[in-house]
Amino acid sequence: MNTPVKKYAAEAIGTFVLVLFGCGSAATAGGNLGNLGIAFAFGLAIVAMAYVIGSVSGCHVNPAVSLAMLLLRKLSAADFVGYVIAQIVGAIAGAAVLYAIIASTGADVTSLGQNGFGDGYGIGITMTMAVIVEIILTFVFIYAILGVTSSQSHGAVAGLVIGLTLVFVHILGIGLTGTSVNPARSLGPALLLGGNALSQVWVFLVSPLIGGALAAAVYRWLNSSRQA
Amino acid sequence: MNTPVKKYAAEAIGTFVLVLFGCGSAATAGGNLGNLGIAFAFGLAIVAMAYVIGSVSGCHVNPAVSLAMLLLRKLSAADFVGYVIAQIVGAIAGAAVLYAIIASTGADVTSLGQNGFGDGYGIGITMTMAVIVEIILTFVFIYAILGVTSSQSHGAVAGLVIGLTLVFVHILGIGLTGTSVNPARSLGPALLLGGNALSQVWVFLVSPLIGGALAAAVYRWLNSSRQA
Amino acid sequence: MNTPVKKYAAEAIGTFVLVLFGCGSAATAGGNLGNLGIAFAFGLAIVAMAYVIGSVSGCHVNPAVSLAMLLLRKLSAADFVGYVIAQIVGAIAGAAVLYAIIASTGADVTSLGQNGFGDGYGIGITMTMAVIVEIILTFVFIYAILGVTSSQSHGAVAGLVIGLTLVFVHILGIGLTGTSVNPARSLGPALLLGGNALSQVWVFLVSPLIGGALAAAVYRWLNSSRQA
Amino acid sequence: MNTPVKKYAAEAIGTFVLVLFGCGSAATAGGNLGNLGIAFAFGLAIVAMAYVIGSVSGCHVNPAVSLAMLLLRKLSAADFVGYVIAQIVGAIAGAAVLYAIIASTGADVTSLGQNGFGDGYGIGITMTMAVIVEIILTFVFIYAILGVTSSQSHGAVAGLVIGLTLVFVHILGIGLTGTSVNPARSLGPALLLGGNALSQVWVFLVSPLIGGALAAAVYRWLNSSRQA
Repeated sequence: MNTPVKKYAAEAIGTFVLVLFGCGSAATAGGNLGNLGIAFAFGLAIVAMAYVIGSVSGCHVNPAVSLAMLLLRKLSAADFVGYVIAQIVGAIAGAAVLYAIIASTGADVTSLGQNGFGDGYGIGITMTMAVIVEIILTFVFIYAILGVTSSQSHGAVAGLVIGLTLVFVHILGIGLTGTSVNPARSLGPALLLGGNALSQVWVFLVSPLIGGALAAAVYRWLNSSRQA
Repeated sequence: MNTPVKKYAAEAIGTFVLVLFGCGSAATAGGNLGNLGIAFAFGLAIVAMAYVIGSVSGCHVNPAVSLAMLLLRKLSAADFVGYVIAQIVGAIAGAAVLYAIIASTGADVTSLGQNGFGDGYGIGITMTMAVIVEIILTFVFIYAILGVTSSQSHGAVAGLVIGLTLVFVHILGIGLTGTSVNPARSLGPALLLGGNALSQVWVFLVSPLIGGALAAAVYRWLNSSRQA
Repeated sequence: MNTPVKKYAAEAIGTFVLVLFGCGSAATAGGNLGNLGIAFAFGLAIVAMAYVIGSVSGCHVNPAVSLAMLLLRKLSAADFVGYVIAQIVGAIAGAAVLYAIIASTGADVTSLGQNGFGDGYGIGITMTMAVIVEIILTFVFIYAILGVTSSQSHGAVAGLVIGLTLVFVHILGIGLTGTSVNPARSLGPALLLGGNALSQVWVFLVSPLIGGALAAAVYRWLNSSRQA
Repeated sequence: MNTPVKKYAAEAIGTFVLVLFGCGSAATAGGNLGNLGIAFAFGLAIVAMAYVIGSVSGCHVNPAVSLAMLLLRKLSAADFVGYVIAQIVGAIAGAAVLYAIIASTGADVTSLGQNGFGDGYGIGITMTMAVIVEIILTFVFIYAILGVTSSQSHGAVAGLVIGLTLVFVHILGIGLTGTSVNPARSLGPALLLGGNALSQVWVFLVSPLIGGALAAAVYRWLNSSRQA
């Protein structure tokens, strides 16, 4: 449908928007917005992008989504690699612009909306529990994506539903892990901040991929009769 | 359309998500989210699940909804029993995971988003009023479900409308009874918490079923001319 | 399409829900919800009701909407009278149930979500300004209704759009007049509360009707080329 | 489709509503609403207006949107001039009514929801950063508009998506620049307030136009294969 370079550019733009606006809302106005406002920032990024880059690249903007699509043979291995690289590039760029915005006020940059766990992060759940939480959050998010994109008749509302589902998983998850469900979204801020954000980032690279693979497996089993 | 085991699995997954995310948001971040944020957590659970398990089981995730469907002959008696068991299993599992998340922080588990009434719960309405409130809340919720699912032309937005209606009944209800409108959602947290949650839970088992039956009756009378 | 008694019953139920849930959220949890939460309570009442009583009565639940429909010859004079009576009955019933809920806690009933202006209400605008504000708020609300219901192609989303428009006019209006835009919604609480609510209620009976008539006139002029 | 005078009247009404309700919510209830509530006020203005003036004028209500449409040859040069004048007239009228509402309470009018940057505005970003932020915010907003309006199959939800995208860019932007993305929306309050609002307004006239032109260019390049 589109040349690879356009698809990858679309994924980079979309992930840039997700990270700058989602993480940026948390980092610059989290106290004012509350968790509900931050959740809407992340979720409405998908609503905004789905209807414009969806037709170019599918608007994955998330390596865990791309993995699920690869496992369900809706994305080629070559495009999987291209998508993930583009998503990481976009996420780093989003985090970098956010860094520059905060730095321009003269304040120290101590938050870029990074994910985390343990003492001093959210309600302080353990590392094991953070892994479990991220697997569940990502499973719910990607299982919903697979459902709503499977039916042509839902095409017009699919972007709204996926965006509101991302709002949904953030409402619970922000207080627990900050809600990654997206390795690129976690990697960008972690690389620029270092410290705990970087040492803990493996949880947010691995767990969403497990959650996404699990969603693909459950979807294939539970929803398969629809195609029979 | 689907084998029973798949339908029941879908209902269990959906109710698990509703309880873990809805009750979990109330229990772990209720102060930050406010009643509006908690309301969105419950309501968007339906948006997230409707488009993926809706085609498998209809996404009732609520014994009161299944009762209304039984009364309107849209669900068999055998499936009604299977659905309710699956919903209760899912709700208990959701409450159990929530328990484990909170316990992992080292804190005592004093809230799992349970329903209630009387002194020390919400604005402190009486037991009789709690019964009336839950009947009204459930009537509104299920009457709206019956309306939006009756028309093929609303298919694409039905999940959005039902989810936003659940947001709606929570906005008023959280301060009164915590909003059950769903016996499974109330039973899960009550069984794990005991105490007041368990001794009061009968109100939240009985009242939603009355509200659901009332919605079916009013729907059959008021909206019947549409099928004439 | 439906017998008068069913249409009037539908209008009474819908207005009951609007007043109980909208005014009830303001009166019992306004501080927790903030103006945004109260706005969603009123607006989502329309979303919940539009898809179930819309096919019975059109879901006006508001004498100003019915007036606009009368002026545009989409409602007969006889039905206009029947609708308005049913809406007032529903609104009084909604306010009465709300009264009983609050009274059951042992607290004095000092608020039923009534509208108002002057010292001690919102930011304290004058009576003249309250008239102007309500005319503008109602104009916007009903002008949007006329637009979205005029096109068959928007049928599936019309209830969502109208509900979100009611959210919208409440976000600004709550701090000014409490946002009536609906004589029935104002009359119910005023009759039960008396005092300032009752002595000021004429503003909220007259202004929304002017705003609705204005919307019908502007719609007829500005949007008429679509039917030419 | 419509006579110029009707199209320009529609644009003036729409921009009046956007400024009165959006800026008005910020100025009269910003503390109560928080940034999320203000964001919904601006965004739902588009939802309310899109379905009623969309069929008359396209509901641009924003010179940056009209510029993008001009560059993509979807608006004539003559209409571009007419639209922008109408939008500015509507914005000034909206700011003037807001001024009168606040003045009627006896309070000094110190805020009309104006945009800004530097010490004492939001988190205090620099002028250069304000230019960059507004270009990015407007690029995202208008790029999304171009996407969702390009496909007939999304027609019914286009107004919802565009409105939610405007909510989205406000969630991040309110704390930075107040979020203009619309020269008319900034000019109205600035002309009535003077002071910093007026001396800084050039940023909010120029940057959104650059962002809109950028969105048109990226859209033409990245999304062009869809029309091939």
